Amino acid sequence: MKLLHKDLFRKLSMTSAMALSIPVSTEPLSADEGMWLFNRLPTRQLSAKYGFGPDAKWAEHLMRSAVRLSSGGSGSFVSSEGLVMTNHHVGSDALQKLSTKDKNLLDTGFVARTREEELACPDLEILSLVGIEDVTARVNGNVSPGADTAAANKARREMMATIEKESKDKTGLQSEVVTLYQGGEYHLYRYKRYAEVKLVMAPETAIAFFGGDIDNFEFPRFDLDVCFFRCYENGQPARVEHHLRWSKAGACEGELIFVAGHPGSTRRLNTVEHFRFLRDVEYPSRLALLARREIALQQFSLRGAEDARIARDDLFSIQNSRKALRGVLTGLLDPVILGQKERTEAELRARVAADSSLGATLDDWARIAQARQAFREFYEEYSFLETGRAFYSHIFGIARTLVRLAEEKEKPNAERLPGFRESDMETLELNLYSTAPIYPLLEKATMVDSLTHFSTHLGAEHPLVRMLLGGKSPRDRAIELVNGTNLMDIQVRKEIAKGGRAAIQASSDPMIVLARVVDPYARAVRRKYEDLVQGVERESYGNIARAIFALKGAEVYPDATFTLRLAYGVVKGWEEDGQTVPAFTTVDGAFRKHDLHKGAEPFNLPQSWLDARERVDLSTPFNFCSTADIIGGNSGSPVVNRDGELVGIIFDGNIFSLVLDIAYSEQKARAVSVASPAILEALSNIYGADHLVREIRGK
Amino acid sequence: MKLLHKDLFRKLSMTSAMALSIPVSTEPLSADEGMWLFNRLPTRQLSAKYGFGPDAKWAEHLMRSAVRLSSGGSGSFVSSEGLVMTNHHVGSDALQKLSTKDKNLLDTGFVARTREEELACPDLEILSLVGIEDVTARVNGNVSPGADTAAANKARREMMATIEKESKDKTGLQSEVVTLYQGGEYHLYRYKRYAEVKLVMAPETAIAFFGGDIDNFEFPRFDLDVCFFRCYENGQPARVEHHLRWSKAGACEGELIFVAGHPGSTRRLNTVEHFRFLRDVEYPSRLALLARREIALQQFSLRGAEDARIARDDLFSIQNSRKALRGVLTGLLDPVILGQKERTEAELRARVAADSSLGATLDDWARIAQARQAFREFYEEYSFLETGRAFYSHIFGIARTLVRLAEEKEKPNAERLPGFRESDMETLELNLYSTAPIYPLLEKATMVDSLTHFSTHLGAEHPLVRMLLGGKSPRDRAIELVNGTNLMDIQVRKEIAKGGRAAIQASSDPMIVLARVVDPYARAVRRKYEDLVQGVERESYGNIARAIFALKGAEVYPDATFTLRLAYGVVKGWEEDGQTVPAFTTVDGAFRKHDLHKGAEPFNLPQSWLDARERVDLSTPFNFCSTADIIGGNSGSPVVNRDGELVGIIFDGNIFSLVLDIAYSEQKARAVSVASPAILEALSNIYGADHLVREIRGK
Repeated sequence: MKLLHKDLFRKLSMTSAMALSIPVSTEPLSADEGMWLFNRLPTRQLSAKYGFGPDAKWAEHLMRSAVRLSSGGSGSFVSSEGLVMTNHHVGSDALQKLSTKDKNLLDTGFVARTREEELACPDLEILSLVGIEDVTARVNGNVSPGADTAAANKARREMMATIEKESKDKTGLQSEVVTLYQGGEYHLYRYKRYAEVKLVMAPETAIAFFGGDIDNFEFPRFDLDVCFFRCYENGQPARVEHHLRWSKAGACEGELIFVAGHPGSTRRLNTVEHFRFLRDVEYPSRLALLARREIALQQFSLRGAEDARIARDDLFSIQNSRKALRGVLTGLLDPVILGQKERTEAELRARVAADSSLGATLDDWARIAQARQAFREFYEEYSFLETGRAFYSHIFGIARTLVRLAEEKEKPNAERLPGFRESDMETLELNLYSTAPIYPLLEKATMVDSLTHFSTHLGAEHPLVRMLLGGKSPRDRAIELVNGTNLMDIQVRKEIAKGGRAAIQASSDPMIVLARVVDPYARAVRRKYEDLVQGVERESYGNIARAIFALKGAEVYPDATFTLRLAYGVVKGWEEDGQTVPAFTTVDGAFRKHDLHKGAEPFNLPQSWLDARERVDLSTPFNFCSTADIIGGNSGSPVVNRDGELVGIIFDGNIFSLVLDIAYSEQKARAVSVASPAILEALSNIYGADHLVREIRGK
Repeated sequence: MKLLHKDLFRKLSMTSAMALSIPVSTEPLSADEGMWLFNRLPTRQLSAKYGFGPDAKWAEHLMRSAVRLSSGGSGSFVSSEGLVMTNHHVGSDALQKLSTKDKNLLDTGFVARTREEELACPDLEILSLVGIEDVTARVNGNVSPGADTAAANKARREMMATIEKESKDKTGLQSEVVTLYQGGEYHLYRYKRYAEVKLVMAPETAIAFFGGDIDNFEFPRFDLDVCFFRCYENGQPARVEHHLRWSKAGACEGELIFVAGHPGSTRRLNTVEHFRFLRDVEYPSRLALLARREIALQQFSLRGAEDARIARDDLFSIQNSRKALRGVLTGLLDPVILGQKERTEAELRARVAADSSLGATLDDWARIAQARQAFREFYEEYSFLETGRAFYSHIFGIARTLVRLAEEKEKPNAERLPGFRESDMETLELNLYSTAPIYPLLEKATMVDSLTHFSTHLGAEHPLVRMLLGGKSPRDRAIELVNGTNLMDIQVRKEIAKGGRAAIQASSDPMIVLARVVDPYARAVRRKYEDLVQGVERESYGNIARAIFALKGAEVYPDATFTLRLAYGVVKGWEEDGQTVPAFTTVDGAFRKHDLHKGAEPFNLPQSWLDARERVDLSTPFNFCSTADIIGGNSGSPVVNRDGELVGIIFDGNIFSLVLDIAYSEQKARAVSVASPAILEALSNIYGADHLVREIRGK
């Protein structure tokens, strides 16, 4: 339940460099490490270790069957009629938005018996990757010789926007230029986009998240963490060319498996100084933020059942992130892990120093260190103002989008902020005009907390605080903002968007006014980040990347970027304290755990399961673990065998996998999946959804 | 459930100045404000407003019936045989220490049917105030003319220690010189000390804390937050001269009541700059600490029922403090409240500036501002090293006590640190050799968290962090420390204490070694605090105090100091959103609330109550609220009527009372008490404890 991209990395993706990965673990080089690009698969390694080299057809079929969901996870097509399988916790954002006080789909689960019963999701978007093109030369070619770092960074960003727009105009496909190897390469990813998505089936949270926060990041597990959506086109189920067939028997112990998904962000070869920044500045700061938000949402949830319901998805995300980040920080604080990094870096530096043809110099490390040192001084300011830490509110997010939209729309496409380019407009509007419910009481609670945090951080008498609070206490100001705004009304948003800059200037909506006043400050600190940190790092990490390419060639995969990657590994348990943790659990175990805890939360099976106890095949494999290299964002990734048949779906990593963010290890770190046989068994014998089983089986 | 001194103020009491209070509220001067000294009662105000002037006999009887408990609360003698009534949540520390995995007194409650069944508490100490003596002249007389601030501070502290020792030697009574009016006066408090204390009766937490964290700081309430201990002397129940008789009918709406208890700490007339320090530095820092500890203990509790049990008391304290501190911070962030303070201060400054005979000058404000400005720079260092934020572990606390004891014992009594003087030794040893259980797993969890906090605060490569962690990760170091220490063994502690400095130097116990290495750093920052902050503030706040005395005379009460005070007020509800919140609840309401929530936690009445539903008088008054001026530390304070008869026991304040820390208001702020009739009713008709009822009634 924790491999969401949004949980772990949404905020990070803007602030942390995507560094280059070379093997840095203590593992032998033959370890199942790597999040490989689909246009640069580790064919040699696979052949050498497993005697299996995926061919182009195999790879393309898997690539096109895999999807990315806008809620921050992965999934796959599992029928020719646009049926998508993902994790329940990837779908829970949509489930929450489709729920009301009297009909809570998270509690009850949902099965559409017919197409007509499928429920339209307000703002879920699903992307299916169609192709990848290397555009490195074109992006770098836009930099004038002798340009300084900031100018070069700007020139590259403008060319990326231009390429995206051209591609969109030409193909109609969603187009995104991805910075790989932190500037080593730039690849254009083209996606078919589905914005008409309906909910088909979801089990109850009680079984999807059986064991709750206690078992999160643990194994053995007994979770049916799946749900099904359907992509539509023009009101009809989408006809998809590529979808995954299901294996009859599922995976078995020791079997080679593949994972096609969207790992969010890793930092495996950040420089050591960059690691120190994460360890001493960014992660502690973010963990403190998560702790205060967790407490605030817990307090809110205590007010009553309905309050608990509306805060649930946010609270889960926070708890999940907290546990994950804490795991990474624990790794960063381990001198053994950092010592290893130091040795790897020292080796690389020695080779770079000895060979000027490699393209990098020791200055590149020094400049990154300097950039991070500079960022230490304004990291908090950046977080509060630009990533919105000071304004923890959905409505504020809407207000800021409107304010920025008005300003960005007036600029040439290539010069706009990411997210505001022509190629981003469909997605932007889907979110901006989403009918997903917004709860004023929750908005007030989170805004009180974040304004309080902001006030105490800068000091209540800081001019900016005084200006933004308008002489009020954080509590009174938050209430005034939420009570006073009209942005709950989608029509109002549309009118303001239509009115452009004039409408923004004329607006007296307090949220718009707040976002308008904050924006110049937020933009200034963003600019500072781009110039002093991002620009420098793009260049220097790019240089280091080229040196590593020269030394290691195709052995190198880029750090995760929430784009499609292939990981591989074997189905395998691990040894702990002299005991073997077996690779598989069975359905029987869920019932036994329920009994052991006398059905006390979070070990309470839903009634549908209790009723089916005599019916289901208790020996069905339920969850399994493997050595595949995954991380947040891989939630919902299909797991396939050599034949490309689906054998499971990733939903978690064990506690030892948390450090995968910074270094791979296959000794104890494991990816955790729901086994495909359990999914079919539950659909048939618990949820009476044989129509879905037939669809999945292509019958 | 939240008026414990330890929760709110234990750490604070060392770092925050005890400033002088004069009425600063918007309330009329006739408001029921004040925490009055027993040797300076507000007789004039009471006579004027209520036509009742307590006489010396009335006051002495109440004073000597009241007690202070070492767990951080208040209580009173309620029989001639040493029976003490306090809050369940004041007793819960002892209840936790008397519980085991298989016998959890917090869950089951406890009733001793005979004296033999009473359970000896490992380290609970009860103090009964015997007399107060003004020693201001002697303390100030020890300062040489022309001494600088630090020297003057030192001279005063030495004289305080001397007076305490003299008093102890002469009377055998526990003796404490209390700094009142932040240096305006010094009074010697003499206590009879009871260290032989047994548990007599406690209800189940389910009814003592009915409504849990949800209802904490709320009203209406339905809590039987009481428990009973008995003081012993030489193995026999203590014969006490003064104890409270119980009112037959209890209190009624509108009745004048008095509260005799130990408010922990208030800051009502800190200077405005001092308030800004609390608002911008201390409270945000402490709230962030509480949030991370709350999360850490929640995580620990999730591991299982026994883990939850052993963490429960700590977790409750943290949650309680968090809610209280958050309330105070909300007040500090309210420009209306601060604006009021600014106006009051401006008035006072104007009068001081105009009249040099008042003794203070505007420099006094400037010096306090400067002191707080200086403290901003090392507040965190002080917290981590001296108040032990970096080492959240009972065993570390023991190790530090042993390390300091060895060093302090070699010094002349007057020069020792507070807590290590001859007059403190009995209490020190009671705690140091307590048989209260210590749980290694909990120690590890809290130590991992606090060492992580320390590492990320200073940065993992800070020389001090490196030295204290010894090249290990916080996690590995915490495990090593807890696994390696022998201080769980009380005999080992005794031997080290006996061995003095040589034993400390020779010890290889990792906790002792850690405490030994940290101590010079901790002492250095403590010294810095004493010289740069405490010394300056004693002097300047003292000057300001004298000016206020000159202006206001006996209208002035000192800020709370966890010493006995008298508050008064009337039994009264309040108006909110046009609705009246009535002053009383009845026993019936508890059953109705249980029914409403279908007995779901925390609204689950214990079986003893459910069984007694037909038996009890449902119309018995249960809880009530009043305008009395109370704060953390008042937990368990007896509430008496004009006749000095007990009508209730304080256990909470409503949410509006949280700002009482910084400013009194009687508009909505209310103290919350258990009504005496409910206590007798429950003892008789629920707990079958008629023997206690007879004892209380003196029959």
